[in-house]
Amino acid sequence: MEIGPLQHLIKAFARLPGLGPRSARRIVLHLLKGKKNNLLELANMLADVAKNVKSCPKCGNIDVVIPCSICTNAQRDHTTLCVVEDVVDLWAMERNGIFKGVYHVLGGSLSAIDGRTPQTLNFNSLVNRVMDDAVKEVIVATNSTLDGQTTGFYIVDILKKYDIKITRLAHGIPIGAELDYLDEGTIIHALQSRQSY
Amino acid sequence: MEIGPLQHLIKAFARLPGLGPRSARRIVLHLLKGKKNNLLELANMLADVAKNVKSCPKCGNIDVVIPCSICTNAQRDHTTLCVVEDVVDLWAMERNGIFKGVYHVLGGSLSAIDGRTPQTLNFNSLVNRVMDDAVKEVIVATNSTLDGQTTGFYIVDILKKYDIKITRLAHGIPIGAELDYLDEGTIIHALQSRQSY
Repeated sequence: MEIGPLQHLIKAFARLPGLGPRSARRIVLHLLKGKKNNLLELANMLADVAKNVKSCPKCGNIDVVIPCSICTNAQRDHTTLCVVEDVVDLWAMERNGIFKGVYHVLGGSLSAIDGRTPQTLNFNSLVNRVMDDAVKEVIVATNSTLDGQTTGFYIVDILKKYDIKITRLAHGIPIGAELDYLDEGTIIHALQSRQSY
Repeated sequence: MEIGPLQHLIKAFARLPGLGPRSARRIVLHLLKGKKNNLLELANMLADVAKNVKSCPKCGNIDVVIPCSICTNAQRDHTTLCVVEDVVDLWAMERNGIFKGVYHVLGGSLSAIDGRTPQTLNFNSLVNRVMDDAVKEVIVATNSTLDGQTTGFYIVDILKKYDIKITRLAHGIPIGAELDYLDEGTIIHALQSRQSY
């Protein structure tokens, strides 16, 4: 029963990650039932992002300026490079406000199953940065998933011949977690990496 | 870290029903990472719907034509009026393809707690249709929630003085359901409304 333009819009929403036909219908009707210019406002915001947001050719971050505001920030430590899979991960790192280095966004993780080979990710530019810039440390902050860890090992492999420090985020018990709900791997790792008070 | 236009777009998505800041960020990045004109395509579809989709002044359905294609369909039985809360419910009814009557969309349900009084819903136009049109039967198809049932009783109350049949959708065991997973109310109702083979 959904007609023409509505059907196209619902299908477009249903294709977005985490949404399906039902939630897409709900969202579109919510937009239609709301303020008269709800739809146009969202349309304008999308067009604004399409026009103004660009990918930083240096680090892969997205920003309205190129190179991005992190790459051009002289206050930050450009000798420490944090490698993340995606821009969401960069945002997650920035939310803590502790890290003062710069980033390198790979654009995903390696995956044999999904056919994401090293050629599909920004490894070449990473190696170039390590060679050209005065990088002293690369912090591997890929996700702690199978694909993320594989990607981490690959980074170590391609960077080990350069005279830099390569580190990774510590594994362990998340703050606020209960042991009962954690997997064995995490507990084993936390035990083996135990620290004295 | 989300900058300017991106932040506005993420906030707009996060306000949509069923979405939050995290899913909104994921969606916007998905749009950015995809085909170059992904964002503009979605923007155009939204503008298209904003321009062309209108609410039917007769029944409250939404369509690109006014009155809507159901109200103007001579093949349909205009003496049978199915009253639903929302356009999603009309779509759900139309998906079965069995109902050949026409609709009346209330625009929601009554709720004392949320302050949705009879004045906020399309009851006046419902009464007018019952008085003016040759309506013989009103099928109350409001949701089987507390608010939906309250709305149903209210409809019966305002229509009982007219010489029409007022019916509601049957309650009972949903097809494919296991008794063990159903609430007592449904089972009691199904038992009391039991039918002979």
